[in-house]
Amino acid sequence: MRFDVLTLFPEIITNYCDVSIMKRAKESDVFSLNTVNPRDYTLDKHKKVDDTPYGGGAGMVLMAQPYVDAYEAVEKLENSITVMLTPQGEPLTEQLVLSLAKYNQIIMLCGHYEGFDERIRDIIKPKEISIGDFVLTGGELPALCLIDAVSRKIEGTLGKIVSAEEDSFSNGLLEYPQYTKPRDYRGYLVPEVLLNGNHKEINKYRYEQQIERTKAKRPDLYQAFFDRNSQK
Amino acid sequence: MRFDVLTLFPEIITNYCDVSIMKRAKESDVFSLNTVNPRDYTLDKHKKVDDTPYGGGAGMVLMAQPYVDAYEAVEKLENSITVMLTPQGEPLTEQLVLSLAKYNQIIMLCGHYEGFDERIRDIIKPKEISIGDFVLTGGELPALCLIDAVSRKIEGTLGKIVSAEEDSFSNGLLEYPQYTKPRDYRGYLVPEVLLNGNHKEINKYRYEQQIERTKAKRPDLYQAFFDRNSQK
Repeated sequence: MRFDVLTLFPEIITNYCDVSIMKRAKESDVFSLNTVNPRDYTLDKHKKVDDTPYGGGAGMVLMAQPYVDAYEAVEKLENSITVMLTPQGEPLTEQLVLSLAKYNQIIMLCGHYEGFDERIRDIIKPKEISIGDFVLTGGELPALCLIDAVSRKIEGTLGKIVSAEEDSFSNGLLEYPQYTKPRDYRGYLVPEVLLNGNHKEINKYRYEQQIERTKAKRPDLYQAFFDRNSQK
Repeated sequence: MRFDVLTLFPEIITNYCDVSIMKRAKESDVFSLNTVNPRDYTLDKHKKVDDTPYGGGAGMVLMAQPYVDAYEAVEKLENSITVMLTPQGEPLTEQLVLSLAKYNQIIMLCGHYEGFDERIRDIIKPKEISIGDFVLTGGELPALCLIDAVSRKIEGTLGKIVSAEEDSFSNGLLEYPQYTKPRDYRGYLVPEVLLNGNHKEINKYRYEQQIERTKAKRPDLYQAFFDRNSQK
């Protein structure tokens, strides 16, 4: 998997991918990461990449020329997708992450300040993705979420790949409670069922916990799970 | 506003907050940022912070002792809230961001790997927040999203505070299209209405665009907007 990120703040992307599991993934050749700064492509003599909006209003708008030229300079692999990180996009879900993991290349456009000149959308026609209904300074954190989430789905990124399959949402439910040593921490005990080595009982307990938690904390997810399973 | 982040990867947090608008915010004394590494609090002689799960399964579980001790060592200001970043939490929305911005201190617990020993929840009783229905390597990116989104609501972070008010979701709708120079880019023209200086017409055009886009791209948001306004 190759990630290409168009951003005015490439160091945000590279800094994150130089730590933790992402660093190991990069070193293991599972994915490569390339950042492109539209500022390097502006034809403006003052190196500007943004300007005031037509029609007035606060803030600045990212100019089409530096972004479109930077985008066109990116090498396109076969089986590539272009994504714009924007609050207007399709909400990122685990299902969308799985479908993105099937590409060989994800090119990401990160905005900043007031957003993109609309003609960037008109010309590049990216798939627009949002990580949630809240507003951020730029698309860099959403791009990192996408890179992190997609990387987890690619064999070789996680030490034990099975671990990803046991994550939240892998069966449409929230995770069951986890416990590790010691058995007694400040009087809070590990549930007895987890200590008896009966895996059938353990699986039953965990599944029931998933159902119970999802029902209590995310009735919307529980309803979707229920609907899916009653159709079977 | 003071942010305290408990994380095994403090450099992820500090690196991000040393660039762009966050850097300016920090320098302007609008907020302060403090990271705490639970690894510095572990009583384990090998400095371990995680261990295998009771009941079996892949991956590791974060131990209660280092997290609880690190949490208890954080100075608590008046009007403080403690947040755990987890897929099980309440989805982060612009409304939740606004309510968080009213605190003087947000203490954040970031997990990693397989998640928290359940007793961390039992003892600390944090408000659990999720940035979306997808799985990440750790809580650091969600914590940064929260810090970034909340900071935007605090006077002094943004150059022009009005800019935040014109963002997506500020009236429950997606943003209208934006254009900046030139008027003609590769044959794509700026809509005429934005050029005539008639602010009544411009506002009407922008509002109609917001309605149209929200209806097309996010029918759920449009429905909520419609329901709110028909109640008035």
